Amino acid sequence: MKILRINMTDLSVLEEVVPQDYVGLGGRALTSMIVANEVRPTCHPLGPNNKLVFAPGLLTGTMAPNTGRLSVGAKSPLTGTIKESNAGGTSSQKLAKLGIKALVIEGKPTGEKFYTIKIDKNGASVVEENEVVGLGNYTAFKKLSSMYGEKVGVIGIGQAGEAKMSAANISVKDLDGNIRSAGRGGLGAVMGSKQVKAIVIDDRDAEGLAIAQPEKFKEAARRLANNIKKHPVTGEGIPTYGTNVMVNIINEAGGLPTRNFRTGRFDGAQKICGETMYDTIVKRNGKPTHGCCTGCIIKCSQVYNDAEGNYVTSGFEYETIWGFGANCCIDNLDDIARIDWLCDDIGIDTIEMAATTAVAMDAGIINFGDGKAVIRLLEEEVAKASPLGRILGNGADLTGKAYGITRVPTVKGQSIPAYDPRAIKGMGITYATSTQGADHTAGYTVGTNLLKIGGEVNPLGKAGQVELSRNLQIATAALDSTGLCLFVAFPILDFPDTFQAIVDLINAQYNLELTCDNVNELGKLIIKTEKEFNKAAGFSNAHDRLPEFLSEECAPHNTTWDFTGAEIDELYNF
Amino acid sequence: MKILRINMTDLSVLEEVVPQDYVGLGGRALTSMIVANEVRPTCHPLGPNNKLVFAPGLLTGTMAPNTGRLSVGAKSPLTGTIKESNAGGTSSQKLAKLGIKALVIEGKPTGEKFYTIKIDKNGASVVEENEVVGLGNYTAFKKLSSMYGEKVGVIGIGQAGEAKMSAANISVKDLDGNIRSAGRGGLGAVMGSKQVKAIVIDDRDAEGLAIAQPEKFKEAARRLANNIKKHPVTGEGIPTYGTNVMVNIINEAGGLPTRNFRTGRFDGAQKICGETMYDTIVKRNGKPTHGCCTGCIIKCSQVYNDAEGNYVTSGFEYETIWGFGANCCIDNLDDIARIDWLCDDIGIDTIEMAATTAVAMDAGIINFGDGKAVIRLLEEEVAKASPLGRILGNGADLTGKAYGITRVPTVKGQSIPAYDPRAIKGMGITYATSTQGADHTAGYTVGTNLLKIGGEVNPLGKAGQVELSRNLQIATAALDSTGLCLFVAFPILDFPDTFQAIVDLINAQYNLELTCDNVNELGKLIIKTEKEFNKAAGFSNAHDRLPEFLSEECAPHNTTWDFTGAEIDELYNF
Repeated sequence: MKILRINMTDLSVLEEVVPQDYVGLGGRALTSMIVANEVRPTCHPLGPNNKLVFAPGLLTGTMAPNTGRLSVGAKSPLTGTIKESNAGGTSSQKLAKLGIKALVIEGKPTGEKFYTIKIDKNGASVVEENEVVGLGNYTAFKKLSSMYGEKVGVIGIGQAGEAKMSAANISVKDLDGNIRSAGRGGLGAVMGSKQVKAIVIDDRDAEGLAIAQPEKFKEAARRLANNIKKHPVTGEGIPTYGTNVMVNIINEAGGLPTRNFRTGRFDGAQKICGETMYDTIVKRNGKPTHGCCTGCIIKCSQVYNDAEGNYVTSGFEYETIWGFGANCCIDNLDDIARIDWLCDDIGIDTIEMAATTAVAMDAGIINFGDGKAVIRLLEEEVAKASPLGRILGNGADLTGKAYGITRVPTVKGQSIPAYDPRAIKGMGITYATSTQGADHTAGYTVGTNLLKIGGEVNPLGKAGQVELSRNLQIATAALDSTGLCLFVAFPILDFPDTFQAIVDLINAQYNLELTCDNVNELGKLIIKTEKEFNKAAGFSNAHDRLPEFLSEECAPHNTTWDFTGAEIDELYNF
Repeated sequence: MKILRINMTDLSVLEEVVPQDYVGLGGRALTSMIVANEVRPTCHPLGPNNKLVFAPGLLTGTMAPNTGRLSVGAKSPLTGTIKESNAGGTSSQKLAKLGIKALVIEGKPTGEKFYTIKIDKNGASVVEENEVVGLGNYTAFKKLSSMYGEKVGVIGIGQAGEAKMSAANISVKDLDGNIRSAGRGGLGAVMGSKQVKAIVIDDRDAEGLAIAQPEKFKEAARRLANNIKKHPVTGEGIPTYGTNVMVNIINEAGGLPTRNFRTGRFDGAQKICGETMYDTIVKRNGKPTHGCCTGCIIKCSQVYNDAEGNYVTSGFEYETIWGFGANCCIDNLDDIARIDWLCDDIGIDTIEMAATTAVAMDAGIINFGDGKAVIRLLEEEVAKASPLGRILGNGADLTGKAYGITRVPTVKGQSIPAYDPRAIKGMGITYATSTQGADHTAGYTVGTNLLKIGGEVNPLGKAGQVELSRNLQIATAALDSTGLCLFVAFPILDFPDTFQAIVDLINAQYNLELTCDNVNELGKLIIKTEKEFNKAAGFSNAHDRLPEFLSEECAPHNTTWDFTGAEIDELYNF
């Protein structure tokens, strides 16, 4: 295994032996350690001193199920914090098979040219990119695949990343040549600032990964697969309806933020929910269930077609449908699907854009409910990086500032996603305290708050929420280091053998004798390292707070966000 | 004396007896204490929980020379810190004569209407404003003066404040009906968020201020006046050439930030310097010397006419001329004068807009040196609050973010003014550590660094700069509480009797027995109070830093900004 460094200042490539300290790390653990060790916390996120780090998880590239996630890390231009965002797609497994434990992009070119980084079994090279600059991801990925081989992995940025918009994501080619995204925190802008349009990964004739104890590994992989399959969420709910199964659940719970977080229920929920989506997909000969990486046995994804049966979008997630649906009051699934495709093509985070769009609606730029107007803003303003497009493409916080709007649902500059913290208070604790800004994936309390997964904590009360969020944030940090899909958390919470199976997989692959406690300690270490980086970057407890307007009551429960600062700060007592 | 509170939520007016703790305070001391005591540091600056406080200085309204400054305080939407910005004009003296120690505007109306607050000897009232909404300051002030009386004081916001742009200033009518500005920190946006278009102050038949010991007061006023008159800067340099006398001095010192802080000398300096400006004004029958308040004996202001002898602008300051001149490479004084008028009319800070314009030039929006393009941006974009206008009107930081520009000369979100911190390092310490964000008036080391006023500290070295800035910041905080113009600092630094005369004035007016040490302690208390507010708002030492790009060498001295964090942090050892 090696660390591959690309210095964009002089376009040089360096292969490093993995330092001893990093041998047991992968995914988020590795991106966060490298960023914390090598990036000055006060540096400008788009300057030459930031670094963009890609790392497959510890288990990525093996036969273990659902281990294909790719972690991307840097100092975030959206939040100013350390950032890890991860995605599916095929690139992570290809990097792992090529023996690349981390890819670190450093420096910044002089001049304005963009480049493509090509990686194969012979090493890496940096070439001037003249074919796909300015193109959206769908077209660019197709072109790059036809240039370099249909099976290559591609990691790229769309027009948003090229324009260094701080809501720009990093897109990853999936099994069908479509788009998966490391969505949050504007990492696409960091890639744009390095002037890297794409990374092409060709793993032909790669050596692949050594497994120290193959039989033990296989046995543990089987146990993990069984636990995933037998859990009602990962075995049935998500495979059938996708993540969009959540619209009805969260709407019922009164926690579906609607009309820029004014209420917790959306009148149009039935028109956009997972069940309606499933029926629509089946009727139009789409694919209701579909995986984002090789080895996925959950298959939460889908392919959504138009009424004529033509492809509209895929990887059409609950958070996107909530954001442009309930939160922007758009009850037309076809409009939202087109918006999803546009965001993927432009390479911009759907959660950030959805929250931003609702703020823009409050600012009177377009009207609530007008899906066609959103499509026009994306096509005519954001994709073309007009002044208005640059406002929107830099997220809800900047849009709020530009228009003097105070109802801006962000924490540390990142938009709050699809779970109202007044109705699902554990999520509020996660949003407030996560090292990543408001992020549902950092400590997803919804299972326990609403579905009695891993216990039961009343979503409307304060009791138990801090401890719940703390435990989940620590476990998630560890999980994000393995390459495993976050949905494995559901069986982990209900079937203790799931976590043991994961530890057994790591031990079998690397010939280690880790315990569950060791892995938990790794999670703590990751979060503490990230927190220290943020502190040095200027963050304090005063930033671990939710926006002031959440002191308003949220119907139907008429609850408010009522945690004191001291209560929130208990999260870091570990 | 009373505190007048206007609650914009219900449009109610409350007159309060001054609490004992506030009796000995005025100006910045009073605005900062009220904000620190009454505003939650984490509140949204444009929300109902921020308060906008106006306070005349301790000596304002008396016969003491140069005591007419008006302090304005709030939590700043530009920096997120506490903020005090002060201006000349006639309103401060009128408030003082009406016995108003502070005017506090609280809450926020429902609906979109704007209001005017009218204050006279009978009290205050809030009236819906239908005549001047949407108008620039020049027209609005004329209309309000013709409606309410030519001699009324007017405090108002232009289109920038109405649009809640965070570079919006608060404008104050001067002796000629022209504009003076509380420029920095976006306080005009706070006034806009309260939906107050204007405050009209009619001091007819006001009781005026009691002076406890009139003879002692007169004697001290005479000593202060003599010291001001006999100092070469306040007695001769500034009265003749205005503050723009600094162009040649700072250019010669290699500290005139040019082309968005790329070098310290501007080729076109001779075309825009104070001497050229003086000749031009005289030739065109303008006024080369002119005061901003009654009782001013320095008269640093001027009236600048066009070639036909028509009024173009007044209060045409060095920082404005530097900012649009050297820093934007515009060597045409007529263009800069028109820009100054436009900024005053729109009600936007010239320093913030100048720095923003240079960032916009780096972003390629317009070209360096193109004064006509700047005029067009102000008229067509900022005044009309177009998307591009909103980007620019929210300052350099937001403009840099919107366009992905890393060369952004700000500290805590506020633009660095007219003195390069690599060539005049004491100013760098002030920019980094001031509670106000980058602010030259918070601790103006230029006198000592370049003119041997109050001692001598090598501008290019590190030795002595922290102590110099610390002493000046403390003294300035006290001075900002008296209503005195900052230029009194020059005689204070060279003639010890000046400070004693000021203390004698305060003692004579209020029948006190303060010492110079007491006044110095007040300065420390103000800064510590402001610093505590900022800390609770989320600021730490990590924010007391200059932008990363200042590690580049600055010609002609080829020095860099080389203070360590620990060295900078010494400032707060008091």
